[in-house]
Amino acid sequence: MKKIPPLTIERLCAVYGALRCHQQNGVGVVYSNELGKLLGVTDYTIRKDLSYIHTDCTSGRGYDVEGLRDNIRQALKLRPKKKVCVVGLGRLGAALLDYGRFLDADIVAGFDQSLNRIELLETSVDLFSVYRLKEVVRERNIEVGVVAVPDHAAQEVTDLLVDAGVRGILNFAPTNVIVPDGVFRKNMDFANALREIVARIGFGG
Amino acid sequence: MKKIPPLTIERLCAVYGALRCHQQNGVGVVYSNELGKLLGVTDYTIRKDLSYIHTDCTSGRGYDVEGLRDNIRQALKLRPKKKVCVVGLGRLGAALLDYGRFLDADIVAGFDQSLNRIELLETSVDLFSVYRLKEVVRERNIEVGVVAVPDHAAQEVTDLLVDAGVRGILNFAPTNVIVPDGVFRKNMDFANALREIVARIGFGG
Repeated sequence: MKKIPPLTIERLCAVYGALRCHQQNGVGVVYSNELGKLLGVTDYTIRKDLSYIHTDCTSGRGYDVEGLRDNIRQALKLRPKKKVCVVGLGRLGAALLDYGRFLDADIVAGFDQSLNRIELLETSVDLFSVYRLKEVVRERNIEVGVVAVPDHAAQEVTDLLVDAGVRGILNFAPTNVIVPDGVFRKNMDFANALREIVARIGFGG
Repeated sequence: MKKIPPLTIERLCAVYGALRCHQQNGVGVVYSNELGKLLGVTDYTIRKDLSYIHTDCTSGRGYDVEGLRDNIRQALKLRPKKKVCVVGLGRLGAALLDYGRFLDADIVAGFDQSLNRIELLETSVDLFSVYRLKEVVRERNIEVGVVAVPDHAAQEVTDLLVDAGVRGILNFAPTNVIVPDGVFRKNMDFANALREIVARIGFGG
């Protein structure tokens, strides 16, 4: 297997998500130019991305939606599902707990400082005091931590998660967090994303 | 002014956000290698990105934090602040209303189908029934729409926003939405981001 570049991994993840919608809508075959349009890239980029994984169909005949999903799932090693926890259960963290059914990962724990919030929150996910984070992350083999705390606490929580052994951090706090080598981090920063859109509008797209 | 490539715009937005934290922490000077580390890119990339905008300081002497922020703000035309609305006020949409103070844009309206939800939600943002979307977007000169509805409604809401005249869409629904030429769209897909982290972990970072 060739090493897959990060941006290709990012796009393959988006393709995989888009194909879920195709499946739900009963679409059986998809073409690279359709996928390109959805992702905002050229069909050449899509074909190049798909060349990194084993696919049964050529783009001239289109890709079988289910087959392509299976191929991506395998190439990106999305199974067995990894275990995820959410730290910080304000509106945002609580919203993320609801996303379980869309995920290729299992949210197996949520943490918050406030025991009151933990008691009041309606969810099927097991919730704990953040003071039990290290213990629960280790016991449940949690590999990814979602950081949904206020910005001033984001680095502290990230350090706690890394110390407990997670290998991936998805940070929703409006600040950058630093992780050691070997830990993969992605920022989902609403402020940055909005800023980017505003800038792109200013430049005319 | 040279045309700024999309990925450079994305990184400049992230640098701008990072500098806010520096300012809050009272840091006066920042170096390209520090910024590179925060963003997960090389210091060369940072210097190259900053070469697109007018900066007073050379990287050897470091960048003045406040000056650099001003330069980026100007280059990306972040002022005057553009107006934004949030459509869909479930847990996620409601959470986004709280982010106002981090934003280089003003959230001036929120929309939901449920009048009950609109009445119960505690926020300083003006809330409306989604049936008034077109009218309010036009009256208030809203240029960016944040889509925080369930996935099955995301395209419909996007079409509604585009029809009302917004020029940018920030989509939080776990599905791709299609926009016409001239409208800029960015997906903030929790499922894709998590998938990407899982894949990166599988590949060893």
